[in-house]
Amino acid sequence: MPINETLVTEAERLTPKLREAEIAPRALVDAVPDPDAFQGWRMEPAGDYEGLSGRAFGKGESFVLDFGDHQVGYVSFAAEAVGSPPDAPLKLKLVFGEMPCEIGENFAEYDGWLSSSWLQEETMYLDVLPAAVTLPRRYCFRYMKVTVVDASPKYRARFADFRCAAVTSADVSNVPPLPDGVPDDLAAMDRIAVKTLQDCMQTVYEDGPKRDRRLWIGDLRLQAQANYVTFRDRDVVKRCLYLFGGMPLESGAVGACVFEKPHPHVDDTRLYDYSLFFVATLHDYYEATGDREALAALWPIALRQLKLGAERLDERGVVTDDPSWWCFIDWQGDLNKQASAQAVLIYCLKRGLALAEAAGDGEAAAWISETTHLASEAAMSRLWDAEQGVFVSGADAQVSWASQVWMTLGGVLAPAEASALFDRLFANPPEVGMNTPYMYHHYIEALFECGKSDKAWAEMRAYWGEMMRDGADTFWELYNPNDKKFSPYGSNLINSYCHAWSCTPTYFIRKYWNRTK
Amino acid sequence: MPINETLVTEAERLTPKLREAEIAPRALVDAVPDPDAFQGWRMEPAGDYEGLSGRAFGKGESFVLDFGDHQVGYVSFAAEAVGSPPDAPLKLKLVFGEMPCEIGENFAEYDGWLSSSWLQEETMYLDVLPAAVTLPRRYCFRYMKVTVVDASPKYRARFADFRCAAVTSADVSNVPPLPDGVPDDLAAMDRIAVKTLQDCMQTVYEDGPKRDRRLWIGDLRLQAQANYVTFRDRDVVKRCLYLFGGMPLESGAVGACVFEKPHPHVDDTRLYDYSLFFVATLHDYYEATGDREALAALWPIALRQLKLGAERLDERGVVTDDPSWWCFIDWQGDLNKQASAQAVLIYCLKRGLALAEAAGDGEAAAWISETTHLASEAAMSRLWDAEQGVFVSGADAQVSWASQVWMTLGGVLAPAEASALFDRLFANPPEVGMNTPYMYHHYIEALFECGKSDKAWAEMRAYWGEMMRDGADTFWELYNPNDKKFSPYGSNLINSYCHAWSCTPTYFIRKYWNRTK
Repeated sequence: MPINETLVTEAERLTPKLREAEIAPRALVDAVPDPDAFQGWRMEPAGDYEGLSGRAFGKGESFVLDFGDHQVGYVSFAAEAVGSPPDAPLKLKLVFGEMPCEIGENFAEYDGWLSSSWLQEETMYLDVLPAAVTLPRRYCFRYMKVTVVDASPKYRARFADFRCAAVTSADVSNVPPLPDGVPDDLAAMDRIAVKTLQDCMQTVYEDGPKRDRRLWIGDLRLQAQANYVTFRDRDVVKRCLYLFGGMPLESGAVGACVFEKPHPHVDDTRLYDYSLFFVATLHDYYEATGDREALAALWPIALRQLKLGAERLDERGVVTDDPSWWCFIDWQGDLNKQASAQAVLIYCLKRGLALAEAAGDGEAAAWISETTHLASEAAMSRLWDAEQGVFVSGADAQVSWASQVWMTLGGVLAPAEASALFDRLFANPPEVGMNTPYMYHHYIEALFECGKSDKAWAEMRAYWGEMMRDGADTFWELYNPNDKKFSPYGSNLINSYCHAWSCTPTYFIRKYWNRTK
Repeated sequence: MPINETLVTEAERLTPKLREAEIAPRALVDAVPDPDAFQGWRMEPAGDYEGLSGRAFGKGESFVLDFGDHQVGYVSFAAEAVGSPPDAPLKLKLVFGEMPCEIGENFAEYDGWLSSSWLQEETMYLDVLPAAVTLPRRYCFRYMKVTVVDASPKYRARFADFRCAAVTSADVSNVPPLPDGVPDDLAAMDRIAVKTLQDCMQTVYEDGPKRDRRLWIGDLRLQAQANYVTFRDRDVVKRCLYLFGGMPLESGAVGACVFEKPHPHVDDTRLYDYSLFFVATLHDYYEATGDREALAALWPIALRQLKLGAERLDERGVVTDDPSWWCFIDWQGDLNKQASAQAVLIYCLKRGLALAEAAGDGEAAAWISETTHLASEAAMSRLWDAEQGVFVSGADAQVSWASQVWMTLGGVLAPAEASALFDRLFANPPEVGMNTPYMYHHYIEALFECGKSDKAWAEMRAYWGEMMRDGADTFWELYNPNDKKFSPYGSNLINSYCHAWSCTPTYFIRKYWNRTK
């Protein structure tokens, strides 16, 4: 599929200038093993940061800085020699960690299947001392460990002036106050959620600033929803939509993610749900901004996603299942995704209808209405198990939380029926659970949508609230309260602990508090 | 001692602009263990360099480039991804080696006492591919090993366009042709010696461009002597003399070495012989250039070194011995340095006399003559063992090669007596031998000075010639033909294999060939 240069050029024009804040360390700490702490590590105070510049460090000695909160940015510091003139380079190892585990554990022992190159460490040499060092790479961290790997018998090293130039494209001054009456615990949750979004908002809406640092459409959709009630940016959302729209895959499907550097290009990953979410994201953007220029430019691309999505319906009107990684929904290896995908199609068709009407595209509107009807009917006739009173998915008729959540969001059941469905699920929980804040987001939204707002607030407090009790400065990519080291990548060291799709408590609080309380 | 800003400013003004040559790799090689090879490693061909850009490297894979000769400079290369768009940083490990052992062995196992920070390796991340990389640090190498520590399951890495911007302040076009009749083996030795000097000639006369990359006066003196018959630079020698002269130690003694960065400063190391060699180096410079401005500026400092040297004479007129590291002479832990130091004082006094006369300083000339006489008499009456017919050193009357060599260079014996002394030594070699090309240089010079030129040429062929047979591209800091892994630092990995004080075969060939053949 050729790149649409007009869209990509406009996307590049919309690249924001990043805002910078200078952050100094707050304290010295040590990572201490503790079986009662989250993932087995806690931070222990190890002195005032101000005392650091009076100490000198020799071969094998180290210290850990605590920057007080999660940071995304560029680090600088000063180093000098104490003793004789430095007669050999100063060799340093720097480790950056969002979480205590990254400081406490040894990266050399990492054996997950994601590239170890995401682990944030540097080995560097200072040939000349004193030195003012500005590290060229961006790090994502609260803690920074500095180890003197080697100096020389004739000198030791002293350090000072650590700073992080923290970057974001988010305008913090634009965030409206919380609705009246939001209780303290939710206000605290909101603050962390807003910080999560802020740290992910760079020149695109990144999924995680530590890893993968890319624009994924699944993350973008939720970030944009949170953004409309907080930072109220429109240019960067528009840039992201234009990047996706301007660089489809061969088939015309919108790719699952795009890269910005060295020039914008689309990844070769296609996911059924993610392509469809282009429509939902455009819908939400148009609803928030009324930007008719964007609507005109992107509506044909959105319609194409719906057509491609509908092509996967079999003769019964059911989305064709597939054993490959064709649809995301959740990081849940046991999950059959057929029913969820069916519901995502319906969900996006409905948002597409609003766009077709706004764009004055009557032909598309008619097709969408017809297809929505077909897919919804098929969902009820083929995927609803009336006996159990749940949606089932795949050849083995799997019952999962995801299927019920998405069918609810797709509006396949009337709200009262969905509410009753959830009551049955609470009494008899499906075996296949939820692993990500991304899936939890949809679960919470489904609860609000079917009128179970008390349960929604309670579940937010149980899930994101538990992350807070476990020490979250920003909300995490992955969290299973029953398996706190859960990682789909084979190691919790590589999990992202500031992750876009986890920022939505602020969306719920700002959208639903006044409506439900 | 305050810095003499006039001298240091003039030294800085004389900083040369470095000349650059672009060098491409010649071949791919592998380091292979081989008990018959020098230090147990040899390089085996592993394909054409041209074939490299057609290959792709995944996690854990590596290759070794051979740049064909010893290089000192700045490396650049290009890297790109093969496969899917790179979804994780490319983590590389680069190792630079002057010798096969540095490529074959594992730096992690280094346990010498010099700082491991001298071992030339880098761990780096390329966040964006394709990338054009220019490494900021200078390396000293013939071989470069590139290891892909990690890429990702979705892509592999391809490399091309490796270059070294080789730097030197030496003007190669200035080197005169060799004297007629120099045989091929000595012509080859001359070429390697000149390359050694060239690679050490940077903005100062460095001792070794791999390690320590500093201006030591012991190296400077020999480099300058080789330079006067090859590159015929005068400005950088002058710069070096002004740096030493402008930044003496507290006592007024010239320091053993100085640093250029971040601003010129002297090291806190004082060595008896090295301070005195300021006089000899100035003598040689004045003889080569007739630079009266430098003579006027530096003569008072030179005279001060002679006075300080003479202060160490005891009431018998013998240099006071000391168990500490007070005098260098050789990297030879068993060597007692008293007799050598006595001879170095006499050697430098004699060169000081020529300077005093050139400077018209009659008072100093008289004092120098008197002191030379006193020290020479004491050498014969207190350090000459008439029974054995050798010089002895220290309380235990140690007999070493170094004592005999230096007493010969100091002219304490008449040439015929010195010649007879060496005949006795060849028949009955002293137990305490020589470890460095620096000491071997003085041995060869002593042989020429006492008329044993055939032996001098034979010994050069046996020592530097054996280095050539062992694969030297440039001559080495340390070489003991009977212990080829010899290192005073606990590991041959950290030895310097391009070392200033080893460049003097070119001096001998160009100075003595026509006189002796």
